[in-house]
Amino acid sequence: MTYRLVVDSAQLEEQIINLSPDQLHYLKRVLRLQNGQTFIVLDGKGTTLLVSLEDKRAKILELLKQRNELSRKIHLMVALPKGSGFEDIIRSCTELGVTSFMPICTERTLLLPSQGKLDRWRKISKEATEQCEREIVPQILPPVELPVAISNLDLEIISAYLCLTRDNGIPHLGESTIPQEREILLAIGPEGGWSQREIEVFLASGFNAVSLGNRILRTVTAPLAAVAMINAILKE
Amino acid sequence: MTYRLVVDSAQLEEQIINLSPDQLHYLKRVLRLQNGQTFIVLDGKGTTLLVSLEDKRAKILELLKQRNELSRKIHLMVALPKGSGFEDIIRSCTELGVTSFMPICTERTLLLPSQGKLDRWRKISKEATEQCEREIVPQILPPVELPVAISNLDLEIISAYLCLTRDNGIPHLGESTIPQEREILLAIGPEGGWSQREIEVFLASGFNAVSLGNRILRTVTAPLAAVAMINAILKE
Repeated sequence: MTYRLVVDSAQLEEQIINLSPDQLHYLKRVLRLQNGQTFIVLDGKGTTLLVSLEDKRAKILELLKQRNELSRKIHLMVALPKGSGFEDIIRSCTELGVTSFMPICTERTLLLPSQGKLDRWRKISKEATEQCEREIVPQILPPVELPVAISNLDLEIISAYLCLTRDNGIPHLGESTIPQEREILLAIGPEGGWSQREIEVFLASGFNAVSLGNRILRTVTAPLAAVAMINAILKE
Repeated sequence: MTYRLVVDSAQLEEQIINLSPDQLHYLKRVLRLQNGQTFIVLDGKGTTLLVSLEDKRAKILELLKQRNELSRKIHLMVALPKGSGFEDIIRSCTELGVTSFMPICTERTLLLPSQGKLDRWRKISKEATEQCEREIVPQILPPVELPVAISNLDLEIISAYLCLTRDNGIPHLGESTIPQEREILLAIGPEGGWSQREIEVFLASGFNAVSLGNRILRTVTAPLAAVAMINAILKE
């Protein structure tokens, strides 16, 4: 398998890519690549290049065709879980094709994460992109409160689903027919679920309430399950 | 939320349940339940009872109707991953309704797990059953080699899917129409995939090759994604 490396757009020039000392160390010392050997470079925004190592730079050989992205954008709005749960969610949901992560501080969120945490999350999504062979690094937005997050959405182009446990008569996510051409947003609650007030905010904003089934899912299971169900509906 | 406790069938008598010292300790010291307070007892095979605490026993008050199980049996045949990956798979896939776990020793499996490991896996599936509010504790079979596992299957009553990464022209799991009344089996490979020889064994045995999409999924993500896709198809 060819090694894949996400670089910053600023590193790209017309024919070459300037590699950072860290990247060079990894390519030469860890992977033991020699001059002339090839690997793949992505800018994380959709440009994928076959390159060869030439001393401290990479020479661009070929623009590769994108083929591993979903045809639709999937946004994941998720109540920040305790501990390292959000890191697991980023890893697995990047693999399943999520376009952007929107962490939410809910009524039950205790602590706002630091900038260091946000940087760490972005590093994880970059690494997961390399490993699962996607072309686009998902965006991770800074955590905000629910009303702010909702007011930032353009619900004219997004079909938004509020994912709940237990059906209580609401349709299963698997029954959804997602309108053509629209982006998809999945909102997943915290342990113990969204508060009644939060649910009302979602519904008043035009979210469709859907069920993920009759069992109680943990906060790390629910996002992955919901995104996989969308993959099944898209058949991608 | 009412506390749920899985007990051994041998603990059930006609009107009462004999509680073990560990169970009593948890109910009385950790949950601080008093005599007369109610909780739920399951035998893990489908019997769910509302009971009340009465000294060292539980008095059966009512037989509860089962409502959180899927309508179909889902069997998960999964190549044993490294480290504690299988524990994560048991936790999350129990939540998604899997009936039985069939760990497989593949050509790339280094170490056979000990009996202690198998006991630990069974404890995890029991706890996950309590927490996700299922009525049936999934069965965890001892790890065996692939040909043995396949020869133990009754493929007359099971629709079996070999889940692969990348489509290569094979249909996506989301496109599958699962025949009515049949049980479902999902086979998920090890890191690096099944060997060509193993794939041939599956296909010769009547497994349907399906794709989980165009991205590379880690061994802990793939089983969860595949089971969630089946949930979406079943709309349960």
